[in-house]
Amino acid sequence: MKTHLIFGSLLALILTSFNVAAAQPASDQPSSIPADTANGIAFPVNYQDWAVVSVAHREDNKTLRAIVGNPEAIQAIKDGKTNPWPDGAILGKMVWKDRQDDHWAAATVPDKFIHAEFMFKDHQKWADTGGWGWARWVGTEQIPFGNDTLSASASCVACHTPVKNQDWVFHKPAIMPKRIR
Amino acid sequence: MKTHLIFGSLLALILTSFNVAAAQPASDQPSSIPADTANGIAFPVNYQDWAVVSVAHREDNKTLRAIVGNPEAIQAIKDGKTNPWPDGAILGKMVWKDRQDDHWAAATVPDKFIHAEFMFKDHQKWADTGGWGWARWVGTEQIPFGNDTLSASASCVACHTPVKNQDWVFHKPAIMPKRIR
Repeated sequence: MKTHLIFGSLLALILTSFNVAAAQPASDQPSSIPADTANGIAFPVNYQDWAVVSVAHREDNKTLRAIVGNPEAIQAIKDGKTNPWPDGAILGKMVWKDRQDDHWAAATVPDKFIHAEFMFKDHQKWADTGGWGWARWVGTEQIPFGNDTLSASASCVACHTPVKNQDWVFHKPAIMPKRIR
Repeated sequence: MKTHLIFGSLLALILTSFNVAAAQPASDQPSSIPADTANGIAFPVNYQDWAVVSVAHREDNKTLRAIVGNPEAIQAIKDGKTNPWPDGAILGKMVWKDRQDDHWAAATVPDKFIHAEFMFKDHQKWADTGGWGWARWVGTEQIPFGNDTLSASASCVACHTPVKNQDWVFHKPAIMPKRIR
């Protein structure tokens, strides 16, 4: 589920759409898209309360990540049905710049919040982009990134192509104790 | 909230109690303590569904961590009341051995689940141990670690003493977008 921006012609496209999104307050979004949508997708309200799917530390861009899932995604993990993930599952990733912990020198902890990125599974609706809708909201103000499906999804799909065989998702669910039912 | 085992006399005590706990199935715990308690504290059922408080990567022991909070802890974060944390707040930490990601060489992701550790806030009940009850369950089978309050808490409290001034908690809540109420 990593979304490194790829280079080449896509980069210009991505930067252009980022600048447009960042410069526009949400209220200036086209009227056909609700103010809080990114890439044509509705904001997943209160994803901060979703359960943990995994965590990651990327040394290349010095970021820490928490991968979370909506209740449908968590149920899919419990059922062992994550390749493919079922329609309705949403995976979210909160990304922070990393920093050294104040009290434990060998520990890396979150600094500034960078963005939250999401994959929305609907194998019919998003058939052209791997069965997933892709979206990002930037910063603590959650500014929508991208305002049309084609440009923003292209970078996501390109980056996730190496994990096409695991339903386009980088992170396998972290091993954890089973819930008590 | 890190719980490095400290060295010296405590280490022997800790290892002894670990060995006892690891060797005993939960059903062999003393009858005065429910089978699923650790260090005299009841197991926090389905903590896996709690929301994210923070994440961390410890380079010294090569572990990744997800810090989660029960609803009382998450409400305290929303209210900005985390020093001290309110009674009823529980902070949990899931700890995994780290490994290199299969598809992104610069990314570190969870491998084997090591243990889950918890701090239970009750400033009166746990007045002798910083206002927190301390407990750990080991492995995916969640074997209780320690079966008396004194020995297991001593190592936790000793390790957390550097963060006494932030109510004994290493992890400040990660910056994240506010929930929509």
